[in-house]
Formats: sequence, structure tokens, C-alpha cells
Amino acid sequence: MLKHLLSMDEVSIDDIISILKLSEDFENKIIRQVFNYACDKILATLFYEPSTRTRLSFESAMIRSGGSIIGFSDSKVSSVSKGETISDTIRTVANYCDIIVMRHSIEGAARVASEVSSVPIINAGDGANQHPSQTLLDLYTLKNIFGSINAFGGHTIGFVGDLKYSRTVHSLIPALINMNEKTFILISPQELCLDQSFVDRYRKDGVILRETSSIKHINDCDIIYVTRIQQERFPDQTEYEKVKNVYRITADMLKPGLKVLHPLPRVNEISTCVDKTDHAEYFNQVRNGVFVRQAIIHKILGEE
Amino acid sequence: MLKHLLSMDEVSIDDIISILKLSEDFENKIIRQVFNYACDKILATLFYEPSTRTRLSFESAMIRSGGSIIGFSDSKVSSVSKGETISDTIRTVANYCDIIVMRHSIEGAARVASEVSSVPIINAGDGANQHPSQTLLDLYTLKNIFGSINAFGGHTIGFVGDLKYSRTVHSLIPALINMNEKTFILISPQELCLDQSFVDRYRKDGVILRETSSIKHINDCDIIYVTRIQQERFPDQTEYEKVKNVYRITADMLKPGLKVLHPLPRVNEISTCVDKTDHAEYFNQVRNGVFVRQAIIHKILGEE
Amino acid sequence: MLKHLLSMDEVSIDDIISILKLSEDFENKIIRQVFNYACDKILATLFYEPSTRTRLSFESAMIRSGGSIIGFSDSKVSSVSKGETISDTIRTVANYCDIIVMRHSIEGAARVASEVSSVPIINAGDGANQHPSQTLLDLYTLKNIFGSINAFGGHTIGFVGDLKYSRTVHSLIPALINMNEKTFILISPQELCLDQSFVDRYRKDGVILRETSSIKHINDCDIIYVTRIQQERFPDQTEYEKVKNVYRITADMLKPGLKVLHPLPRVNEISTCVDKTDHAEYFNQVRNGVFVRQAIIHKILGEE
Repeated sequence: MLKHLLSMDEVSIDDIISILKLSEDFENKIIRQVFNYACDKILATLFYEPSTRTRLSFESAMIRSGGSIIGFSDSKVSSVSKGETISDTIRTVANYCDIIVMRHSIEGAARVASEVSSVPIINAGDGANQHPSQTLLDLYTLKNIFGSINAFGGHTIGFVGDLKYSRTVHSLIPALINMNEKTFILISPQELCLDQSFVDRYRKDGVILRETSSIKHINDCDIIYVTRIQQERFPDQTEYEKVKNVYRITADMLKPGLKVLHPLPRVNEISTCVDKTDHAEYFNQVRNGVFVRQAIIHKILGEE
Repeated sequence: MLKHLLSMDEVSIDDIISILKLSEDFENKIIRQVFNYACDKILATLFYEPSTRTRLSFESAMIRSGGSIIGFSDSKVSSVSKGETISDTIRTVANYCDIIVMRHSIEGAARVASEVSSVPIINAGDGANQHPSQTLLDLYTLKNIFGSINAFGGHTIGFVGDLKYSRTVHSLIPALINMNEKTFILISPQELCLDQSFVDRYRKDGVILRETSSIKHINDCDIIYVTRIQQERFPDQTEYEKVKNVYRITADMLKPGLKVLHPLPRVNEISTCVDKTDHAEYFNQVRNGVFVRQAIIHKILGEE
Repeated sequence: MLKHLLSMDEVSIDDIISILKLSEDFENKIIRQVFNYACDKILATLFYEPSTRTRLSFESAMIRSGGSIIGFSDSKVSSVSKGETISDTIRTVANYCDIIVMRHSIEGAARVASEVSSVPIINAGDGANQHPSQTLLDLYTLKNIFGSINAFGGHTIGFVGDLKYSRTVHSLIPALINMNEKTFILISPQELCLDQSFVDRYRKDGVILRETSSIKHINDCDIIYVTRIQQERFPDQTEYEKVKNVYRITADMLKPGLKVLHPLPRVNEISTCVDKTDHAEYFNQVRNGVFVRQAIIHKILGEE
């Protein structure tokens, strides 16, 4: 059904619903026959940027589906260090595996890869652009919070922190709009606000976007999605020093029932005192990541 | 039976005996049904410090037991490089695997991990503190030298080299005391002697500890356990330059029957001329490492 | 049949023919019973130098044969960083696996390894010396171009670029001579020509070797084998700056029917405009790499 997974822009609502249902089956261990699809299959993880969650959860998902893993987690150990292009690396590795999961610092890297690859490409993050498997696990977590896939729509969802460089935010907002959510509060320092081009596009589609730099507006939301200020995306490090640590969420700031999501890793933008409360959803997101990535692999490998 | 393997202090004599017997069964290929326990299980190796033996032998043990591997061998490729805490990394990775083997430069890191982990933690070395799987393979090797598990007790065991920073020494001495060995000769330069607090504690328990800086006392021992001077543990590198190369063991220095153990890697503290003699036990230690680690994995995964 | 695979000098014509036939069976999926040999076997990849193709294709070949993988792709994460010798590392790792594939910057490293290893060693590149599995896949690709293994002999084969430091060239020329090819054109800048000792030896055996620095002579050949100018082999980087980019092959330079091989990675010595033409054989080489490496593993593990 899916050929590649590059951007949420190309995943239809039907595909989203189908992946979330499939994820549920994996969570409930209803599906085991997927083992037949992935068995004897090899997934290659090509990570040009550091990762813990995305790489290891894809590897875990593939192994649990019966498949195997090759790859690299540091481009310095690969031929990239000898000057090889992404295209040549992908055309090469596509001979060694059945599916490629890649992360790269350059926006559009996964798309370039998909144009030369003979096997499916999953974008595990391309610069500040997209991170679709994260979005799918975010949607799965929200579905669990809302109670049902039919309960999307009508919520006020806040995004907090770095909205300029965060690919998880750039992937999730349009997906939520597709799922019928129309009201967002964008809470960020001036330097890290969502690009005006996005804001304009969404507003034209009838979406209500409130922009503020005040953290107190988190309690106007039903859900907040917090992101790390990503030092590695700042061209200018003095700029980073100015904005880091501006928001720090503690348990006493949160109204009852407010759910807090975060793609992790966090540095200190959510106090660990929140972890043990009902507000914290971020470790549920981590847990859901394996089921959702099993579903993605199934969707790509299982229905060829 | 075992929940975690953090420190030899918490491993009972019964557990030690049981693991050594199980290791023997693995060496003699009596056990193959362990495959049923580990099959479909995933072991994660999280190595924040370099390793060859420990990481690869745990991975080999897991694979030989039918299981699979995920992990990292360089924390720079993980979210640690983005500022994530050990606790968050462990809570995350515990969702992707069934058992975690970790090495970290900070004493107590494995214990912190065990407090937040939903899966068992094996300490593969935490700073200068403990390295229990190494101790178990050391004990297994000694059992083979002594002829039987009942033959522990009554030997004079020398420790040579770096007794201050070596976690293998800090793990092994209390385990040997538990196994009824009571006589130790500690041979080290003044700067690298065993901390007085340990010496006092063991003496209070009736252990005979002789401290010397003279290498010639190796021949007062039945067994010597030699360690590398670990450059990476020295806060002050000029201190390292002073003490390196103070002891260098050659074949002609060794009395007949004296057995030489070393956790490896060695730099030059044991001449390669010893390798081909009956004194050398260090490559037997390496070989035993896989059986013992299979037994440890079995003990933790197999009896849930 | 094969104990180790260290250098093409030690691989007989019978072995070459047998490996190429076996590779064909893997390509045509005639062989599946090899799974029985490799199943429960572990291959260790010890890469002291960067690699994409060689490491990942050996890993893919082993997994497709039913086996498993351990290893390192960066010697900094291993005990090498603590000062361990190659010999000690190999004697150690040989306990954890059934076959070792290693790459090292020092010529002769694989031979040293084979002298202490209790398991077979495959040389995946030792400095500027040898890279035999690459040569076998080059021969397999040439066999496909020529139409049959009996069609070797009588061709004019050009080598272009870095003939001084390229281990793929040093491995392939003597193998081609063994396969009855006798006419070579060596095209390289003066600083990177084939060492005179090789030239003298081959000429004494009746081989015709033309040396030139002019790229236009590529069209005197039936086949050209292009290599990357390897920055990392130059002791003096100013020397590198002088010779890089001297040859750059574009589609319009090539006469009809001229086949272009390259071990990859390329930097810019072959323009991507060649990729889509019938001249390009380098991605076929990549594809053939897995079959040939399955055959090599089979030859070493399967017939013990």
C-alpha cells in the first residue's frame, strides 16, 4: 500500500487510519502472522545523525517481526567519509536489504534517496523538515488519550518550544489538520516561532492558530506537545544561548487533565517531577513507537 | 532467580554456584533448550565506554541462545549527545528489548538504570566500581584451575598492577572472600594501591592482606591476577606517566605452576612470551566468557 | 576448501572458478541449502577503517545464508583504543564467532590475524595491499560481460587513476593474469603509477603492460577499471592536492561498447552522466557483491 514513507503530506487519511488500527493489533498481540512477511528480510538503518529512539525502535520492530538488521549509526564509519554522495550510497545499500530507514541533516535527503532506491525508503528525519514515523506514533498516542480514532477533532492543541527547527512539529501539525483538528496555540520564543509561510497556509485552510510567547497559555489547551530547543540546528550558537531554558514545565503549572507529549529526548524543558503524574504521556509515546513502527514495516513489506 | 546483575555484593554463594554449574553445561553443550527462553528475545547493549570482549561476548552469548541484539557502542551516536539523562535513555530502551547490558564511566550508573528500568539490567562495568560478569568468568576459570567448585579456599592469590581504579579487582576480591579464599597479596605502586577503606573492611572480616610494591612477591602466590594500568581513569596524566610500565611480567620470572590471569586488554604488562606457557590463563578467561554470559542470560531470562 | 581468504596470490584458478560458479547459483537462487551451513553461525566484522559496501554486503550475505553478525565498525569503540594489539583482539574475538572479516590500514594485518586465529579470516582490505573479495566480485562481473568463464583471455584491460595505493588494483591484476588476460594499459599520473617492482614481475611473466598518463588511451581498451584517488593513503596532503581531479570520465569520452568498472566509492572520477549508459558496470559490481560474498562464506564455512 505504501511505497515509501517520506512525508506526512503524502499519507492519506485512509493510510493513517489503517496504520493506527494495525498498531493496535500489534499492541494487543493479535498479529503474529506478520512474521511471514519480514522473515528473511533485511532492514538497513542509515543514520547520518545521532538517534536512540528512532533507530533502536525500528530495529526492535523489525526483529520482532522476524527480520534482521544491517546499517550504520555514524556516517564517519561509512564511505560518506570518503566523499560518496547520498545517491551512490543508497543505490548501493539497496542491493543489500529490503527496506531502508534513513536520517540525515539535509532537508529532502530522504526524497533524493527514494528517487534512486530500488527498495522502500522510510524517512527517519531529514533536517528540520519531516519525521513521519514519529507523527504516526504521536497520532496513535493521541488516539489512546481521546479514546478512539473517531474522537479526533474539536481539541485545542498547544505546541511549545522550538517550532522553527522541530521536524516533529512540522510533521504533526498538518497530520492533525487532516485528522480534523482545527485549533492550535503556538507557544515559542520569537526566534523559534513557526515559519510565517506555514502559518499563512494553515490559516487559509480555515485553521485557527494563536501565536504567543507566554508559557501560561498551556492551560488553554487540552494537549500540549513540547519540544527540545535543538542546539544542533542553530547556525549561530549565541542565538541558542539566548533562547535555551526559556520554558521549563513543572507539575504545578499544569491544570488537571492536561496531557503533555514530547518526542524526546528532553534536556530540561519538562521537569522530571511531571513524569509520575497523569499529565505525562511521553513514555507512552516511546512505548507506542514499537507497535507503530511494526505497523509501518508491515504496511510497506507485507502487502507487496 | 536474578533480577538484575549490578554488583557481586548482591550475588549469593548459591547463585554463584548455580551460574558456574550452568556455565559448565554450556561449555559441554549439554544445554540447548535455553534456546526456548531467549528465542524472540532482544538484548540491548548500551556501551558508553569502549569495549571489545564484554560487548561482543554478550552479543555472541545472546545470539547462541537464539536471541537478537540492538544497541550502541558509542554514546556520541545516541541521544546522550543531545543531553539526555541515563534515566530517560534506560526508560526508553527498556521498551525495545528484554534485557539491557550497559557500561558507563560513572560509578553507580547501572544501579540508577535498574531503578527506572522495566527490564533487567546487567552492569558491564561502571567506572572503577564493579564488573560482575567478568568476576563470574574469573571464578569459572579459577574453578577449572582448582579442579572443582569445592576446591576454592586455602589459596594465596596475588593482585598485581592497578588496584585503585580496576573494577575487575574491586568485583573479584569480595567474591573470592565469599568463596572462602582468605589470603591475598596486593602488589601495586603506591599511587595505585587498593583504597584503605577496602583493606580495613576485609581485614575486619579476618582476611589476610599483604601489601607490597615489589613484583618479586608474585612467586609467593598460587595465582596472580594482573591488571592494566588504565590511562583513562587517571585524572592527572603526569601521574600516569610515572607509574606505567612499572611491572612487566615475563616467563622467566614465574615459578612452575603459577597461574596468570588478566581480564584483558593488556598493553605490555604481560610479555607475549608468557602466552604459550602453562602459566597463561587469560585466553581461557576469554573463552569461558561466552559460557558464563550464556549462563547469566539464562539465569535472568530463563526463569521468569 | 578455503581456510582463509587473505590474498588472491593464494587462491587457485580452480577455487576462482568454483567461487564464480557458486556465485551464479546464489544469483539464480538455485542454492538455498547453504542455510544449513551458516545457521547458528556468527560472522564478526572487525573494521578498523571506514566501509559501506564491503561490511554491509558481507553482513547481508551472512544474514541471507541464515547466520548472525557481531562486530565493530570503528576501532575507537573497541579495546584497540586502550592499546590492544591486533593479535590479542583476534585471539579474543575468535572465541565469539565462526568467521572473521577484517579491514585494517596496515599491509599484512590480515595475515598476522590468520596466524593467531582459531577461525577463518577474510581480508576485507589491508592498507594498499589486497582486497580479495572485491577481486572475486570484479571477476564475476567480467565473466558476465564476457558471457562465460571460458571467455577470459585476449582482452585489453585498462586501469585508470590511482594504481599506487589502490588495493583493488593490486588484487585484480594478478588474478586477471591467472585468468589468462595478458594485455593491460596503465593510465595514471606519474605520482600514482604502479610500483616498478610489480611492472617488472608481470613483464617477466610475458604480460604486456603499457604505461601512460594520457586519459585518451581508455578507448584502446575493451574494459576500463577506474579507481578513486584515495586521499587517506597520501602521507603528504600537498601531493594529493596536485593529483586529484586529473582524470574525470564523462559519457562522451567513451567509445561504443567500452565497459567501465569501479570498486566505488567514487568522488568525481566518473561523471554521473555515465550511470544511465551501457558503459556503466559499477552498480552491477555492487549487486554481484552479495552473491560472491555468499559464495565465499559458503566455501569457507560450508565445506569444513
